[in-house]
Amino acid sequence: MKSLEEKILREGTVLPGGVLKVNSFLNHQIDADFLMEMGREIARLFAQDGVTKILTIEASGIAVAMGAAAAMHVPVLFAKKAKTSNVSGEILQTVIHSFTHGVDYHVTVEKKFLRPEDRVLIVDDFLANGKAVEGLLELTRQAGATPVGAACAIEKGFQHGGDKLREQGLRVESLAIVESMTEDGLTFRES
Amino acid sequence: MKSLEEKILREGTVLPGGVLKVNSFLNHQIDADFLMEMGREIARLFAQDGVTKILTIEASGIAVAMGAAAAMHVPVLFAKKAKTSNVSGEILQTVIHSFTHGVDYHVTVEKKFLRPEDRVLIVDDFLANGKAVEGLLELTRQAGATPVGAACAIEKGFQHGGDKLREQGLRVESLAIVESMTEDGLTFRES
Repeated sequence: MKSLEEKILREGTVLPGGVLKVNSFLNHQIDADFLMEMGREIARLFAQDGVTKILTIEASGIAVAMGAAAAMHVPVLFAKKAKTSNVSGEILQTVIHSFTHGVDYHVTVEKKFLRPEDRVLIVDDFLANGKAVEGLLELTRQAGATPVGAACAIEKGFQHGGDKLREQGLRVESLAIVESMTEDGLTFRES
Repeated sequence: MKSLEEKILREGTVLPGGVLKVNSFLNHQIDADFLMEMGREIARLFAQDGVTKILTIEASGIAVAMGAAAAMHVPVLFAKKAKTSNVSGEILQTVIHSFTHGVDYHVTVEKKFLRPEDRVLIVDDFLANGKAVEGLLELTRQAGATPVGAACAIEKGFQHGGDKLREQGLRVESLAIVESMTEDGLTFRES
């Protein structure tokens, strides 16, 4: 998505340790109009797939998921990172390791919101090593639902999580794929 | 908002301890079409107020904020509950006590995203004792920005946080105000 690549070049900054900071529009401040546009692009890419539910993970996946869900007219289900007093009933759970924060999260959804008849589109803001998508795939499998693919705003192509998922047969669509990244600049993978 | 009251009656359940569970459409599974409709109602209520930014708090505030921001064509800024490696630069910070989870959160925004010239609408999913809105107000004041009001999806009127904020002069608009709540049923405040 050309407009996303341009926005990353204009507003993104690269921090030491391979962190791409895009918190002016994606994961702290949110450019709502732009995320709605990204959502329409995700809807276009998966228009033929009979998606019944979008599955994401709190917190920064929610805005991207909302953009896509508003365009596709399906509900979002966001996995929670800890069991809280507001998650009860029968749950599905898995563990996702976050390299960004150096911790393991127990991620949870209520079973009744992810059904065997669901066709699930996984949505997230970033795809790097692929651990979040893998965890959401695992919840989808536990539910007996069908994963139709994953849509991510920004993929860090050089971390190869997306390619590994594609090799496993999952359809992964990223709106921008960063192929290389240094403090001097970024290059994107040709689409 | 009549349609929200009806949805709460249809889908909500009351748990012991004053918890209203609406996670089929608001804060776990998200009915995206309905949240966009709620967003348009918030935009209508604050159409004359020159809002330049919506301020919310992760995680479940984000979806409501996205709905409002998409209708108002302004950015969302969501406060983060812990300082992470992705929040850097000069920050504004305060502490919010969560009665739901029994803990204090340090909530943080980057100073550069909340400017003295901003006219800030605070948005959240729930308003109970008002601590979250008070914390977001405090961040707005620290930034020297102007709070134009708060818009919440569901207010627990019987916990009086909203009324306290109104007495302090803040405009608080809740799309549904639950006046009483037991496991046998709910009543709403007349609007």
